[in-house]
Amino acid sequence: MSAEAASSKETTASTDLSELAGELSSGALVTDRDVIDSYSADKALFCPAGEALALVRAASVDDVVAVMRFATTQRIPVVTQGARTGLSGAANATDGAILLNVAKLNAILDIDKVNQTCRVQPGVINQDLKHALAEHGLSYPPDPGSVAISTIGGNVATNAGGMCCVKYGVTKDYVRGMTVVLADGTVTKLGRQTAKGVAGLDLAGLFVGSEGTLGVIVEITLGLKPLLTPPVTGVGIFPDTESAGHTVSEFMSSGAAPSMLELLDGASVAMINAYGDFGLPDGAGALLIVQSDAPGRSGVAELEAFEAVAKRQGADEVFFSEDPADSEMFVAARRAVSPAMEKYVSGIGGGELVDDVCVPRSRLGEFFARLDEIAAAHTVEVSTAGHAGDGNMHPSVLFDASDEASVAEAKETFAEIMQLGLDLGGTITGEHGVGYLKKDWLVRELDAGAQVLQSSIKAAVDPLGILNPGKMLG
Amino acid sequence: MSAEAASSKETTASTDLSELAGELSSGALVTDRDVIDSYSADKALFCPAGEALALVRAASVDDVVAVMRFATTQRIPVVTQGARTGLSGAANATDGAILLNVAKLNAILDIDKVNQTCRVQPGVINQDLKHALAEHGLSYPPDPGSVAISTIGGNVATNAGGMCCVKYGVTKDYVRGMTVVLADGTVTKLGRQTAKGVAGLDLAGLFVGSEGTLGVIVEITLGLKPLLTPPVTGVGIFPDTESAGHTVSEFMSSGAAPSMLELLDGASVAMINAYGDFGLPDGAGALLIVQSDAPGRSGVAELEAFEAVAKRQGADEVFFSEDPADSEMFVAARRAVSPAMEKYVSGIGGGELVDDVCVPRSRLGEFFARLDEIAAAHTVEVSTAGHAGDGNMHPSVLFDASDEASVAEAKETFAEIMQLGLDLGGTITGEHGVGYLKKDWLVRELDAGAQVLQSSIKAAVDPLGILNPGKMLG
Repeated sequence: MSAEAASSKETTASTDLSELAGELSSGALVTDRDVIDSYSADKALFCPAGEALALVRAASVDDVVAVMRFATTQRIPVVTQGARTGLSGAANATDGAILLNVAKLNAILDIDKVNQTCRVQPGVINQDLKHALAEHGLSYPPDPGSVAISTIGGNVATNAGGMCCVKYGVTKDYVRGMTVVLADGTVTKLGRQTAKGVAGLDLAGLFVGSEGTLGVIVEITLGLKPLLTPPVTGVGIFPDTESAGHTVSEFMSSGAAPSMLELLDGASVAMINAYGDFGLPDGAGALLIVQSDAPGRSGVAELEAFEAVAKRQGADEVFFSEDPADSEMFVAARRAVSPAMEKYVSGIGGGELVDDVCVPRSRLGEFFARLDEIAAAHTVEVSTAGHAGDGNMHPSVLFDASDEASVAEAKETFAEIMQLGLDLGGTITGEHGVGYLKKDWLVRELDAGAQVLQSSIKAAVDPLGILNPGKMLG
Repeated sequence: MSAEAASSKETTASTDLSELAGELSSGALVTDRDVIDSYSADKALFCPAGEALALVRAASVDDVVAVMRFATTQRIPVVTQGARTGLSGAANATDGAILLNVAKLNAILDIDKVNQTCRVQPGVINQDLKHALAEHGLSYPPDPGSVAISTIGGNVATNAGGMCCVKYGVTKDYVRGMTVVLADGTVTKLGRQTAKGVAGLDLAGLFVGSEGTLGVIVEITLGLKPLLTPPVTGVGIFPDTESAGHTVSEFMSSGAAPSMLELLDGASVAMINAYGDFGLPDGAGALLIVQSDAPGRSGVAELEAFEAVAKRQGADEVFFSEDPADSEMFVAARRAVSPAMEKYVSGIGGGELVDDVCVPRSRLGEFFARLDEIAAAHTVEVSTAGHAGDGNMHPSVLFDASDEASVAEAKETFAEIMQLGLDLGGTITGEHGVGYLKKDWLVRELDAGAQVLQSSIKAAVDPLGILNPGKMLG
């Protein structure tokens, strides 16, 4: 090999990319630094965004294949991303990586009413899919907070949840099969198209929640439900989160199957009321919003059962409504907690760190009591909303991002909340994922055997370690 | 190393086992050839049962650890088994293997009503768990045909299904976490205890349906449902399977959510009627048994909708009942198809090969038409029952096991049915698994990329290849 050939092997970035450019759809490759940087982070705080080599906005599966072949040949890391609405830094750039954005692969390929399935590309926005399915009398329940802006591909990559999960489960429960592009550019179909199937290890299931560390998902087959019945909605007003937590435990242990059971603490309610009028009462210590979509009289009966439990646990008031407009308003109120909190923190220095612990719901009362202790021991504020029926809570640590001491205390508080989740037999992440944000905590949750197994499987699927390195266990 | 030491390294079976015996619970190790042989096969036909080295009836998790450590040190294959009710030969002995039977690990460790979970050892019989849960107002829906005799561990290892799946899903939908003993004896906890959790790759999910090829499952945490409502039951009588198939497609595409939708073809009905009186009509071309457990009036309304569709598709008669005793009788009739068929085949030479294809339910009509063609082209009989609502059918090939020509034709017919499943966009196995029986067919279903991925992951988890070798892709 001549000296020239050897030096061209250690190619400069520009040389490499011109080779790649020829393989890609026109305009897919972006080398403008400002544009690249604008794609370099998701919505997580405290996660570094490295300097990516390039951005590829894939316009076809062939583009994805070209990127992966090139990346394997050149040993370049690849960070796959969609709408970058994630909360764990999983879509953040690493130095020298290609950002592979698949948001433009956003076709709904097929909606099959008889088989209650659809096939979609990863860039389809969750809410857009819901609208399209409703026209066929079908529904796709998973509804993360980001439902209006996040993609199905991202939802699958993080196994996203939402408010429906207490009755309808998480993203994983709807994924039947997928087409993925592996690290070396191989295109393969995993899973099944049918309602059931056990032909070999469940690799489609393994890819759900793998946060871009195993391959690039380019097509997904989802199982669907018939269009859900409009729910009846109830609201319980409590003096504090503890009594609300005990209500959740008791109500769920009665055999109830609500289609939604959400909690807002007093601070969240105050922020929402300052943000807009959603009909929420002032001065509540905590709210539970409960829905039932059981047919006919059964839905109301379920809310009456809720009322009885709530009153026994000390609720100040419980009311409910069969008017769909009211249901929508209360869900809108619950969803407003994010923008309301954003507005609030903009007035105190703009720092907001959303946690995502999940505990056995029998321990929710204890969880809230100890969360109050954690909050009391720090100067930063803690405000909590979450999917109480599943024990999946999102305490948000609110702080002054411009003040180093406040930032340090926020991080400490955030960590103490994760430790509380583990102490109560729960997990550090119910639905947001590990990404970069919680990678140091993942090793506290997993035992030694599980860590080795995770790493071995990652290495088997991505032997060069080019897929989203430095995230999760990487 | 002395010659003596070298020869003791190449130990005889008896030397090896005496070392192992000291590590095991008293009586766990069985070396009696007759006993070993009696544990060497499950219920599948045409799957070889090798000559096992020994049988270990584990009495504790420590016994499992001891076996795996020993097996790793000595490079001895291990075949894990429970009640050996499987239909794919996955639990069959391979030459020189230790049969590791975990049926005695059959404790229900915990039933948690608030969290709607239970923790069980793998040897718990499915029906025993159902009974125990009912006392707490809880249910575990998966109900394979073997529900009365198969273990939860085996159900998890094969991702078992049943009649509930059309509404309540398969085993995998209920598994939250598990403790497994890995090939080298490492004990590790996988998955979660909580309703949700996304901390790392979903390894618990990967182990579901892995048929003993990745590790030994020694404890399982299951998510549960509140006790299910007693259903109302309907029966549709059709002139042929095709019209029944079209009824399933149309009914399910209407947004129906039956809790059961089972098919029996005319031959199955005749066998059941010859076996006992379950109230089934004589001379039917096909039956659909449908249940709805929707609360109150909704259940009856769902059956009325079924009736309308069935009549439009040419049903001779549809009747239904709200009497729980009738519901139980029709389910008993459906379950009687296995013993009824056994009785029938004992009169024709005793050969019965149960297939397990799953197709998109939109193609059920076509499936039955082509199945009739396959049957007509062979001298062996084909009789079909199955989970029509999921498109998961069990055509049974009935033949004279004492006649070589009949056996050969049975195998050919069986293969043509699997090919039909694949041709219609389905799978070779909806719920019975691959084991040994369908390993040659697995490579026809999976594309090249998926095959490599399956093998790589197996090798990463079981690097010495000692866990159930020769099954699935092994």
